[in-house]
Amino acid sequence: MEALKKLYNANTKGNYVCVGLDTDLKKIPKHLLIEKKPVAEFNRQIIEATKSYAAAYKINLAFYECYGTEGVKNLEETLRAIPSDILTIADGKRGDIGNTSQMYAMSFYEHFKFDSTTLNPLMGKDSLEPFLEYFDKLNFILALTSNPGSADFQKEQLKNGEKLYQYTIKKILEWNVNSNCGIVFGATNLKELSDNLHLIKNLPILIPGIGAQGGDLNELTETLFGAGINSFLVNVSRGIIYKCENENFAEEAAGELISLNEIINKSKK
Amino acid sequence: MEALKKLYNANTKGNYVCVGLDTDLKKIPKHLLIEKKPVAEFNRQIIEATKSYAAAYKINLAFYECYGTEGVKNLEETLRAIPSDILTIADGKRGDIGNTSQMYAMSFYEHFKFDSTTLNPLMGKDSLEPFLEYFDKLNFILALTSNPGSADFQKEQLKNGEKLYQYTIKKILEWNVNSNCGIVFGATNLKELSDNLHLIKNLPILIPGIGAQGGDLNELTETLFGAGINSFLVNVSRGIIYKCENENFAEEAAGELISLNEIINKSKK
Repeated sequence: MEALKKLYNANTKGNYVCVGLDTDLKKIPKHLLIEKKPVAEFNRQIIEATKSYAAAYKINLAFYECYGTEGVKNLEETLRAIPSDILTIADGKRGDIGNTSQMYAMSFYEHFKFDSTTLNPLMGKDSLEPFLEYFDKLNFILALTSNPGSADFQKEQLKNGEKLYQYTIKKILEWNVNSNCGIVFGATNLKELSDNLHLIKNLPILIPGIGAQGGDLNELTETLFGAGINSFLVNVSRGIIYKCENENFAEEAAGELISLNEIINKSKK
Repeated sequence: MEALKKLYNANTKGNYVCVGLDTDLKKIPKHLLIEKKPVAEFNRQIIEATKSYAAAYKINLAFYECYGTEGVKNLEETLRAIPSDILTIADGKRGDIGNTSQMYAMSFYEHFKFDSTTLNPLMGKDSLEPFLEYFDKLNFILALTSNPGSADFQKEQLKNGEKLYQYTIKKILEWNVNSNCGIVFGATNLKELSDNLHLIKNLPILIPGIGAQGGDLNELTETLFGAGINSFLVNVSRGIIYKCENENFAEEAAGELISLNEIINKSKK
């Protein structure tokens, strides 16, 4: 099933929360450390408990790469545990010269078979083209990120009066000829999101920054639904997967996910 | 030995060329395909033949990640083959929110023990800080890249009249309190490089874009030495490692590297 269809199906069911698997060996419940592959086992239990309510699973590649071959095995095992009708996102924020981006695109879309990835547009169109050639995938390109440093460059004003992130959104719309682009827009920049929904049009939005990073979920989704935007993912990583440290961690994660979806669906009037 | 010292030692010996190990299974000599690990064996022979003349080895992570666990093993084996006094660069162009960049920095600097990496600054200061905390490493941050898409954002003019890449260079200088920053500046933008050497000051420069991408080596190094710049790396990947397709590929690669260093040293007057 193509990526956009998976997103649409999830949103139609009232599932808007993307579960971020930023799984850190140092933060998972201690009783799992006796397992042969604690990270993969943690993810497997989280996925099993949350799969009916998750709009997507976002795998933060940094947390896997840092363990070398073991990390790659954890990544592969995690992907196998995700039902095939749920969107998977490789959160790697890549972007490089054409022949290199080609290899990254092959890695995410052919070797690991992700549905989607996050991309950094700083190196321009040809750095993203190898990804954009995969018609059935979904490429979430950074517009305005959720971290404090988003002010350093993304909010800089260009000569024509636009902010860099606004100019980026316009570029993404130009690049979206295959309807396989989305944008990343941080929930910590709610005013900017609200002010620029007319620019974003119908690009699917991946929204980090809720929870540990401080964004307000209710305000966010009222803004989106109020503007008629129905195709988005609110990512929550630490707030879900580390909700509880004991043997009930997976059920507690599912409970948190359900209540986040409830908050979101309540704001849809 | 700290990264900056390795760079200094190489440059002092007249070695300025960084060998880019963008090793593609589809492009290596056919006779190596019977080896158990063709990519690692290709790299081993290239390193063995070039190690006296290489200023650094830059490993393009995309070419390793795309083969999963096999790729990680190739990467580890390649790193083991590089003499400990030669600078190693993880070319990954990463940059993410703080807790994620922390994991990438651990991955490159602690797990794989690279001396250096390339970073994408779009997400701002806090996205790079985990890397900047490693005092003995060298962080090459993207200023102006060598690909056509560098025009899309990096050459955009800001409200204050500066180009984004010029503003980026100033930020990198601010962030360089531990003397562990360098910049990436593409050889395909020679006029911009020449015009901005006063901004770059004594930041070490990693220069891609010579060879397959079309930059002119002689003009480049005359410009640099002419301005009194002595601390830089000219990266050549395809032009060296794929110089020849037969059993002499490693010697031919070494020959090409030697002649590139000769061209560079001749322009130093």
